[in-house]
Amino acid sequence: MSKIRFQQSISLDGYSAGPDQSEEYPLGTGGEELHEWMFGLEVWLKAHGREGGEVNASTPVVEELESGYGARVMGRNMFGPIGGGDWGDGSWKGWWGDNPPYHTPVFVLTHHPRDPVEMEGGTTFHFVTDGIESAIERAQEAAGDEDVLIAGGANTIQQALVAGLVDEFLLSVAPRLLGDGERPLDGVGAELELEQVEGIAAPGVTHLKYRVMK
Amino acid sequence: MSKIRFQQSISLDGYSAGPDQSEEYPLGTGGEELHEWMFGLEVWLKAHGREGGEVNASTPVVEELESGYGARVMGRNMFGPIGGGDWGDGSWKGWWGDNPPYHTPVFVLTHHPRDPVEMEGGTTFHFVTDGIESAIERAQEAAGDEDVLIAGGANTIQQALVAGLVDEFLLSVAPRLLGDGERPLDGVGAELELEQVEGIAAPGVTHLKYRVMK
Repeated sequence: MSKIRFQQSISLDGYSAGPDQSEEYPLGTGGEELHEWMFGLEVWLKAHGREGGEVNASTPVVEELESGYGARVMGRNMFGPIGGGDWGDGSWKGWWGDNPPYHTPVFVLTHHPRDPVEMEGGTTFHFVTDGIESAIERAQEAAGDEDVLIAGGANTIQQALVAGLVDEFLLSVAPRLLGDGERPLDGVGAELELEQVEGIAAPGVTHLKYRVMK
Repeated sequence: MSKIRFQQSISLDGYSAGPDQSEEYPLGTGGEELHEWMFGLEVWLKAHGREGGEVNASTPVVEELESGYGARVMGRNMFGPIGGGDWGDGSWKGWWGDNPPYHTPVFVLTHHPRDPVEMEGGTTFHFVTDGIESAIERAQEAAGDEDVLIAGGANTIQQALVAGLVDEFLLSVAPRLLGDGERPLDGVGAELELEQVEGIAAPGVTHLKYRVMK
């Protein structure tokens, strides 16, 4: 049975991005450090076309996360610099170069219509203007029997949780405090019933996995 | 070397107490559920004079937490109902009956002076009116070679972290969202440098332990 799931690297105080996000610092002050546990992993380097790296307790977590999905959903602010308004000359094609590390359709939530953008390596960006439910529905169609991965950012995760559309999620908790920024679990309320699936300690991070009970 | 440490059971969204705290619900709406992982443990029941219970991966965590300390510090709102003002007729002696489960001196932060209250079983409540640093200093003197445990609540933890007085802490993350309430890591900023010591998954909770680097 295909699932709708997400993963977020968060600080100990719950932020997935720090304050003062900008084109230079898309994750805000300190936000990049939440992902440090991942950057040295062989599995991550390989996905980004590089060699070497480490194998540790995070490796199977990343391998599981990065397999079995057939489409992604992401917010406009994750696709491009904040406050982008309309698409201008259409030259912005995401942060990830000509061959993004997704290799599936990616459904981008936006208020501004745009034709799909086909990239190298199987990634196509589709732009969805009628909300999170529609984006996830279209992603499910595209994914077929495979999962839909909600990539972020915080606001998109919040919308999906509030709409009751998430089946499972993984929080990778970094040993950092950010003090300010965006929290993916804020504004979600207290209604969701959760079940702890597992907790895995790894160098510089602990992964917490939960199932949303229906 | 004796340490200053704390433990807090928190929700996945970082709250140690829910909204609408009252004498009937001192931990606010949903706050009690953050401690559910503990109530069935043999080690917890025994500490509260009862028999039976379970042994699981939380057992050594609780045993370590509850040993090796010689004094506690707690906030006024943890000692008694919120908004208590002065001590009235002095009949309020905490939530825990004649024989509180502490068995050490407990230093209570308050704006209202009060003579020490000696309970059965080795617990004496001392009332400290000149701030968190003074309370911890007095607790350290009382503890001698043993640790000082900051019991809570959220505001007292925040004060101790901001003052740079904490050496180590344990967060026990329950599979719950509260949506509102008090967060012990709020207002602490981004300055503290932390090291992940361990992460332990147990039934209904994951324990995350951190060291504060000086």
